[in-house]
Amino acid sequence: MSLKSFIEVSPDSHFPIQNLPYGVFKPDLDSGPRPGVAIGDFVLDLSVISLAGLFNGPFLNSSDCLAQFLALGRPAWKEARTTIQKLLSSTEPTLRDNASLREQALVPMGKVEMLVPTAIGDYTDFFSSMHHAKNCGTIFVGPENPIPPNWFHLPIAYHGRASSVVISGTDIIRPRGQGHPAPNSPPYFGPSQKMDFELEMAAVVGLGNDLGKPINVNDAVDHIFGLVLMNDWSARDIQAWEYIPLGPFLGKSFGTTISPWIVTLEALEQFACDAPQQDPPPLPYLAEKISQNYDISLEAAIKPAGQKHGSVVTKSNFKHLYWTLTQQLAHHTINGCNLRPGDLLGTGTISGPEPESLGCLLELTWNGQKPLSLSGCGSSRKFLEDGDEVIITGYCKGDGYTIGFGTCSGKVVPSPP
Amino acid sequence: MSLKSFIEVSPDSHFPIQNLPYGVFKPDLDSGPRPGVAIGDFVLDLSVISLAGLFNGPFLNSSDCLAQFLALGRPAWKEARTTIQKLLSSTEPTLRDNASLREQALVPMGKVEMLVPTAIGDYTDFFSSMHHAKNCGTIFVGPENPIPPNWFHLPIAYHGRASSVVISGTDIIRPRGQGHPAPNSPPYFGPSQKMDFELEMAAVVGLGNDLGKPINVNDAVDHIFGLVLMNDWSARDIQAWEYIPLGPFLGKSFGTTISPWIVTLEALEQFACDAPQQDPPPLPYLAEKISQNYDISLEAAIKPAGQKHGSVVTKSNFKHLYWTLTQQLAHHTINGCNLRPGDLLGTGTISGPEPESLGCLLELTWNGQKPLSLSGCGSSRKFLEDGDEVIITGYCKGDGYTIGFGTCSGKVVPSPP
Repeated sequence: MSLKSFIEVSPDSHFPIQNLPYGVFKPDLDSGPRPGVAIGDFVLDLSVISLAGLFNGPFLNSSDCLAQFLALGRPAWKEARTTIQKLLSSTEPTLRDNASLREQALVPMGKVEMLVPTAIGDYTDFFSSMHHAKNCGTIFVGPENPIPPNWFHLPIAYHGRASSVVISGTDIIRPRGQGHPAPNSPPYFGPSQKMDFELEMAAVVGLGNDLGKPINVNDAVDHIFGLVLMNDWSARDIQAWEYIPLGPFLGKSFGTTISPWIVTLEALEQFACDAPQQDPPPLPYLAEKISQNYDISLEAAIKPAGQKHGSVVTKSNFKHLYWTLTQQLAHHTINGCNLRPGDLLGTGTISGPEPESLGCLLELTWNGQKPLSLSGCGSSRKFLEDGDEVIITGYCKGDGYTIGFGTCSGKVVPSPP
Repeated sequence: MSLKSFIEVSPDSHFPIQNLPYGVFKPDLDSGPRPGVAIGDFVLDLSVISLAGLFNGPFLNSSDCLAQFLALGRPAWKEARTTIQKLLSSTEPTLRDNASLREQALVPMGKVEMLVPTAIGDYTDFFSSMHHAKNCGTIFVGPENPIPPNWFHLPIAYHGRASSVVISGTDIIRPRGQGHPAPNSPPYFGPSQKMDFELEMAAVVGLGNDLGKPINVNDAVDHIFGLVLMNDWSARDIQAWEYIPLGPFLGKSFGTTISPWIVTLEALEQFACDAPQQDPPPLPYLAEKISQNYDISLEAAIKPAGQKHGSVVTKSNFKHLYWTLTQQLAHHTINGCNLRPGDLLGTGTISGPEPESLGCLLELTWNGQKPLSLSGCGSSRKFLEDGDEVIITGYCKGDGYTIGFGTCSGKVVPSPP
């Protein structure tokens, strides 16, 4: 580990100088939103860096706005990373030795309010974990042919709701809606009785495409800026009753939580790993020269009201995805659909092959049939209860440092009366 | 008919002084977008009216931006309508007798470029015509129980793609994608072979709601600014293969066309009519004190390449909708989902009970089994061919005038090679 910042970063911090994820924050209640980069326990205020004339490369004349930056594409992203990494390094005096600039530019992370980092024009959610697809199919359709035949030919997805994507830390109000537990009874109405989390990640689109101009699968990586953690909260009873024939709607649209820091593909590159072998082989428009995932450890914990610590309920990994991010993006645009900078592409629940690596309570409790014990607090869960906080984390272990995503958390609060 | 404009409006114009729909236009290539109101063959430039200080009521200090105006709510919409109706009336000298202001404020409609009138944060599409639901179910599932049991209890909907909503007149590129005509063969890839239109209307959300705060069904009307025509282009082969289990995705997201003029609920009020009786009665959160539709005649025509005139292929009516706009909106928010000003709520295909009133080729040709003759050109259609222009119109017949929506048109152009 040669690269080191002049800012002290503890070895288990998610935000060493090798990471440098982007977010949007408010330093205090009265200030407007501004772009920042996480470093240790600080946020580097990019508007200060820009104002000081320190983004002096050819691509970046101004970085006031993360949205514009996303649209500039990979050369600009690389230039910004190089500039910021140099500025923060232990051997570079510009910021290190300028107390007044340091004071302005480095804001303690504990003092800032983080915001949804991009304007999300559209949010799409895929269904790309084979283990998740198999388990859901087994629960709802039965053990014979649990995965629908189209699943192995295309990365299935649905349009999600962009307006209700919220930042980590936002309370999630238990949705009310219709459920239908018995085939021959009328539906009931009330607070969801099967509230669930879904352990996901999401790609943030950088460069978009024009309507009618698909993105080639081998170019798709240059349209992805980075990744965040995501909790696609789901009301299973509402979803089960409403989803035929047009898919999930109110069972999902009451809230979707993302983590505030976008970890760039540059920071993740060293954790790339081979994607699973695909059988049958994908159609030519989905066949990519290099098919890769990332080795990102994922965990979800449930912290009931009044408890001090969360109880880890699953450990999964991004590498379990069957369809890659680049295949998702190429498929999304093959019909000509246009993506815009800041759009969010969720992976779908990331379940692994082991019982301890399932990405939602639906799978972990087998639709509520097998309650899950929460360690350390003597209680168990079929689905989420009011007051439960779900905390998702994700990280890659480097040589002496951690490239992390921070946390993606949200607490379930009761339905309105 | 007492109300009359000083501008001459032909009796069959869609835009008499009783209508006054809102749109966003560019007067020429070099100008930025600005809000306008249609009157006869002219567009009233609201930025000129505002600059001249003629929006002098309590709610409207500035109307430069349609988005802000939508968020002001019904009192402001009523004030604007009263002000504009007075300004344009034959008895009011302010604009009538001011040649220079008239010259600036009234732009010939043939000279302007119309744009998508609002920033569409999210676009939702419902499935609210019982005839359409029944026909689709019969075609795909069979004649026994063609309508899924949930349909009569809730207005089913899916999230659509906001980025690919385009304005009338935009060419629609035939999408490429996967189809799967035979159960035991692998899927094929290529240009869609079953390209269809869907005759719809869409509500434009005015006032939004905060996340977690549902809108009561009896208040819902005050959140709807007005209506547009919509063509929800559909690739039936792509849709049929991809939609299990998460609903339509690429079969729809390549393009959705809307008409440029938002006709306000104030202009439509006199054409309100009783909504169909609902059996079973809806759950209390969907039971409204007044349940109304609007009597809006709808037509779709297909104009093949090289033909001078379109051939009308269906005549339907907005009043056939089973679920009302206000029920749709109340259902959409009952889980806490937030709507934002400018959001679009499509009705779904509006089919009537008669064979001549079906709202898409899927129904009109029974999934391509019964080709449809196009009058006047000697050809027939199973699905749309390259060069076909689909032209949707809609209007309400008043006493001596027409409240119309103009047209919503788009031409199918070939897939990229």
